[in-house]
This record gives sequence, structure tokens and C-alpha cells, in this order.
Amino acid sequence: MSIPSAPRVTLLAGGVGGARLAHGLALALPDGGAEHLRVVVNVGDDTERHGLLVSPDLDTVMYTLAGLNDEARGWGLQDETYAMLDQLARLGEDTWFTLGDRDLATHVVRTARLAAGEPLSVVTAHLAAALGVRAGVVPVTDDRLRTLVDTPSGRVAFQEYFVRRRHADAVLGLTFDGAEAARPAPGVLDAVRAADVLVVAPSNPFLSVDPVLAVPGVRDAVRTTSARRVAVSPIVGGQAVKGPAAQILESLGHEVSALGVARLYTGLVDVMCIDEADAHLAGPVGDLGLEVLVTDTIMGGPAGRERLARELLGAVGPAA
Amino acid sequence: MSIPSAPRVTLLAGGVGGARLAHGLALALPDGGAEHLRVVVNVGDDTERHGLLVSPDLDTVMYTLAGLNDEARGWGLQDETYAMLDQLARLGEDTWFTLGDRDLATHVVRTARLAAGEPLSVVTAHLAAALGVRAGVVPVTDDRLRTLVDTPSGRVAFQEYFVRRRHADAVLGLTFDGAEAARPAPGVLDAVRAADVLVVAPSNPFLSVDPVLAVPGVRDAVRTTSARRVAVSPIVGGQAVKGPAAQILESLGHEVSALGVARLYTGLVDVMCIDEADAHLAGPVGDLGLEVLVTDTIMGGPAGRERLARELLGAVGPAA
Repeated sequence: MSIPSAPRVTLLAGGVGGARLAHGLALALPDGGAEHLRVVVNVGDDTERHGLLVSPDLDTVMYTLAGLNDEARGWGLQDETYAMLDQLARLGEDTWFTLGDRDLATHVVRTARLAAGEPLSVVTAHLAAALGVRAGVVPVTDDRLRTLVDTPSGRVAFQEYFVRRRHADAVLGLTFDGAEAARPAPGVLDAVRAADVLVVAPSNPFLSVDPVLAVPGVRDAVRTTSARRVAVSPIVGGQAVKGPAAQILESLGHEVSALGVARLYTGLVDVMCIDEADAHLAGPVGDLGLEVLVTDTIMGGPAGRERLARELLGAVGPAA
Repeated sequence: MSIPSAPRVTLLAGGVGGARLAHGLALALPDGGAEHLRVVVNVGDDTERHGLLVSPDLDTVMYTLAGLNDEARGWGLQDETYAMLDQLARLGEDTWFTLGDRDLATHVVRTARLAAGEPLSVVTAHLAAALGVRAGVVPVTDDRLRTLVDTPSGRVAFQEYFVRRRHADAVLGLTFDGAEAARPAPGVLDAVRAADVLVVAPSNPFLSVDPVLAVPGVRDAVRTTSARRVAVSPIVGGQAVKGPAAQILESLGHEVSALGVARLYTGLVDVMCIDEADAHLAGPVGDLGLEVLVTDTIMGGPAGRERLARELLGAVGPAA
């Protein structure tokens, strides 16, 4: 198929890697992606803390697109303070999950609007617009979906595994609780089906992308969309750029490499983007039946993100 | 009746004036009032802000007893910051009701625990204990009770009148919504009935004391308790020490003086405490059948509060 010069792009994203590529795409597309970019975001990491609904991946994507993300840390807001958390500790509450004072406003507003009956997708659109985000940011589902992690010491909630236990446990299996009954949020399936380009972010395939695909209808839409599809490997030189992707690939019996990731995405994407450090894997990835784009996938600042976004769009058609 | 040297004291209290006298009593009684002081607090000012339950009077009493109150302002915590509120504004939410970052922890914990099924009195006991408060702090009811204010432009919620419109409207009437169905919180009636001394704080008679008395059973308990009862006038020299008590007395047709206040409490207390500035009213107050204590009722720092507390206890029996 032919790709227009300003394609409609849909990105499947988790947290930091997804947010950075979303930012690059927003920079590469007209008007910050207002008409051209939809980011479908994982909600398996969502958690209730002190009665407030925290949606870490939605917030990271939203804050990064708004230019408000704490870049050094990868998540949360810049110039954050922690007076509320400090006082929570004084009140005897557990504080292993960090909640910044500014960040808290997001959770307070989200929780109040959900309680008033607004779906998460509507609340997210409101919050993103208030922060000046032009691109569409959509939770994959408005329904409750929670990633549960099987570890040698039992099944734990995602943030218990990820934050409290610092993803130190071997991951023996993952359950996306609620996924079977979850419905794609309004616009999600259309965003996949009607896109010119579908991008799978360099997010954790198991923790970030799988729970998106687990919502009934999404995997099929990705399989059957007429969009050109490209995935970016989160594994570079046999290591995860961030987070526990390498350990999880290994503990679940996959090869810890861009090739191992490519195998997971075979049948779902047309093009596999791997890092220059993994150029030697271009042949084996190509043998899977995938086109291969070899480039620098480490996104530093905005310029690097935009460059990668343009290369991805170029690999599937005319440059945006 | 005879008053023991360390009497059991129950204080009916609203916000700032109630909190300061509670502090004085806690200083005057053994062990911070742990076994001797119960403060029964107005909840008519409570409000839901951004989905969080704020209980201004409970918090002012609790923070003041804990030594954490912002003394210059009278409410809220010392050394407070407002990053969350600033971000709320950025998200397009209204911010006329000030919520400090540290203060927010109280509302977050309270809201979460209420949602989990704990009654307000249990949550309050937990919060007060966490802050090191020794005296008992009890909401007058665990049920929903909200003060509504009739103004020339219609009926508004209390905080709408008090904070948003800066209590500038004439008060034509007050409704304690929910009061008829409200039950006294556990321990409230006992605290009134079994006290040696019952003190009515120099709080607003209409906005702070009336909603406490409006909970079925409380007014009768005050009327019939065997405790010695003393009220402190919040009107000094024809003006309110703080807040709109003077305007409300006037708009509801009462004399704006300590005598006007004394008339409201006739039948409910034995002793009326008025300020030295109102010494000329001692005769007329006495003519109502009340004993009169004339003293300096302006509580500055802790020493002034403790002095007033000791004078009140002295006026009803042996010094504590």
C-alpha cells in the first residue's frame, strides 16, 4: 500500500520507551500529531494507592508529550516535591509507591472524575488536553485490567513486583486480570484499523505490549489492519534499555536479544527495527519473514526521538 | 456537685476558637488530656473537594492539639506548600478551596479509610493518634451532616458561603442537612453525660455549636448532664474574635454582644465566661440566671490558652 506523506500513525505503548517514541512521532508529524497520532496505552500497571487511581503509563506518555516529564528519572513530573508523601509517612501509611505533590493532582482529578462516572478514556483526554498535549492518548480499555506477576514467592500485583520489590523476582508467568471481559476503549480498534502506520513501541513486550494486545479485538485488529506495521526492539546488545525486559525474556524461556523480541512479534508486524549494536542479527530477523530496519534506537533528547520516528516512518513509506 | 482536682472535661468545639481552647485544656489537664479531655467537634463544615472529604474543624482541632497548626492563619499546617493546588489549577479544576500538600495527606487517608468502611470517628482517632494527640477528638456524628446557608441570593453549601464568598453574604437562616437522621458518634453522649465539666468553646454559636447540638440527643444530654457547664463568649467588645459571628448574630436578630451570646446559651450552661472588655455586661448576664466569669478570653499562645482553661476549670470547681 502507499503511505501518505503525513500518515495517520497509531502507537502501542507502555511507559518510558513508549512515551519517548510518542514524543518523537509528535515532533515528526504535523501539529504535534493532533490529527495524525494516536497513542494506545497499557493500563495493566494501574494501581489504587491510598484510594487514588494511578495510571503510570498513561501519565508518563501524557507528561512526556506535554514536555513536563522528569527526563532524568523517566517518569513523574519535573521539579516535583514530596510533602504529601512525607506527611503520609507521618500518618503511618506505607509510602513505597512514590507520589509527588504535583503528580498527585492528576490522580486526584482522575479518581474524582471516574467516581463521577466518566470513563478513563474521557478523563485521559481531558487531562492530556489540559496539559497541552495535541496527540490522542487513549487507554487500551476503560475497563479494569491489572497485570499480576507470578514469582517464586507467589502471585503479586504489578506494582508490588515492579516498585516495592524492585522487579528483583524471577517472572514465572503473567496474568492480565480482567482482560477477558475488557472492551477496547472507544476509538482503539479504529485507531489500529484505520492507521496508515502502526508502531509497536520499544516497551516491554510482556509487561507493556502484551496487556494491550490482550484486550479482546486488539490483537486481531493488529494482525489484520492494512496499516504498515513496525516494532522497535527494547533489547539492545542483549540488554534492556530500561527495566526488566531482559530478565523476563530469559525467565520465560526466550532468547534475550532483538531476535528473541522479533520472534514474539512475527505475524504482528511487517518491519522490525533493531539497534545498530544488533546489526549482526539483521539476517536472522529477516529469516523470520520480517523486513529489518537497523538504526540507532537509543532515544536521548527530543532530537533523537524525532530522528528515530522519522526513520521508522521512512522505513514503511515516504518520509513524513 | 464537687469537681475533682483533675476533672473529666468535654469540650464542644468548632474550628479555631475551639481548637485553641482544646489546646489550653490539654495543657491544663494531666498527660495532655489523654484520660481527661474529650473534644466533640462540629462536622457541618465538612465538604467534598475533588472527591476528598475535608473536615476543617476536626483538622484544626487535631493539628492545634498536635502543635502542627499554622498559628498565624489559624488553620492548616505549618510550613505548608501548594504544589498540588497549583497543578490542579493547571488541570482546569477550581481552586478556591485551599488544599496544602501536607494537609492533603489527611484528606487522602480519611477518604480512603471511609471508603474502606471505617466510620469517621475511628478514622479521626487514628489520625489524631498518628499525630501524637493525647486528648480524645471525636466528630459529633459519623453520619453525613452539612450546614447550608440561606443568603439573599439563595441557599448555598457552607464552604461556598464561608470560603468562596468569604462570608460576605447576610445569613438569613441555617439548615443542618442530615442532622435529623444523624446519630451521635460512639462516645459522644457519654462524653457529655459523664463529664465533670462541660465547656462550650468560643466558637460561632450558629455555625459551630448549633450543628453539634442539632444531632439528636446531644442538646438533651447537655441540658441534663450533671456536669458543671461553662460557655465562653466568642463576641468580645461587640465584635467576633474571628469570623462572621457578629454579622450572623445581627442578621438573625440577636444582640451583637456577649449578652446576646449568653441569651443563646441560657438553659444550656451554668457559667458564662465573658471578656474583661465586656465586664459591664456581667450584671445583665447574671440577670439571665447565669454565673458569670469575667476574664481575658483572648487566647494568644499556649500560655494564654492554658491560663484561660485553668480559669474556666477554677470557675466551676477546684483548680485542675
